Amino acid sequence: MERALIEAAAAAARGEVPVGAVVTDATGAVLAAAGNEVEARNDPTAHAEILALRAAAARLGSPRLPDCTLTVTLEPCPMCAQAASFFRVKRIVFGAYDPKGGGVEHGARIFAAPSCHHVPEIVGGVRETDSATLLRAFFSARR
Amino acid sequence: MERALIEAAAAAARGEVPVGAVVTDATGAVLAAAGNEVEARNDPTAHAEILALRAAAARLGSPRLPDCTLTVTLEPCPMCAQAASFFRVKRIVFGAYDPKGGGVEHGARIFAAPSCHHVPEIVGGVRETDSATLLRAFFSARR
Repeated sequence: MERALIEAAAAAARGEVPVGAVVTDATGAVLAAAGNEVEARNDPTAHAEILALRAAAARLGSPRLPDCTLTVTLEPCPMCAQAASFFRVKRIVFGAYDPKGGGVEHGARIFAAPSCHHVPEIVGGVRETDSATLLRAFFSARR
Repeated sequence: MERALIEAAAAAARGEVPVGAVVTDATGAVLAAAGNEVEARNDPTAHAEILALRAAAARLGSPRLPDCTLTVTLEPCPMCAQAASFFRVKRIVFGAYDPKGGGVEHGARIFAAPSCHHVPEIVGGVRETDSATLLRAFFSARR
């Protein structure tokens, strides 16, 4: 999560909503890390999770990441939660809960749908305060 | 939908699950069209909808497509439905219903979540039989 927080802070410095994500393998080694790039790419699908998952899969040369953990500073949205399921990640660890935009513990609750083919282990609230503080500082500076 | 069906058939010919998508503007002009490229890219997020939406946004130089229609041969999955919401498409027209993997009328029902910030108009079942026939032929040939 430390590395994900660093990615989130770097995203904020680029004017992006501060969310960072890391994909690690079974030994804990970092396969890929990314911050949000929605503004830079003009692409609302360029969430940190999608970028990190895609980079990890490219690195392994496989569309499946069954031994991997996705660690992200904010509860994934429904798009990213479904993507993590498609990539078959073993575990998702996230920081702050996101009642407005989250899709794991809130909203569409992607993994609760009986038709969801792969449900990762979920650990939420890890360094929640650090993640939320980054987000709050970013949005309060914009107002 | 005719163009989306052509993209789906082209995807099947490449060994991809036959799903095609088109983004059109307010005049009905095609901004982008794509078929599924999951196998070619080794990327489970390379669904036809995501590729077409991203290409349309790149073409317009805008991450929002508020006057646009996404037409796709199969009911979008939760990932693509959420992406279409992020791109602010006006309307989604889809072909076959997908009880196993769909996320509009089935499963996570993305647009039914109160926290979904943008809900497009939805028209399902357009040339449903043509879409479903392509999919059935593809999967029966694989068995």
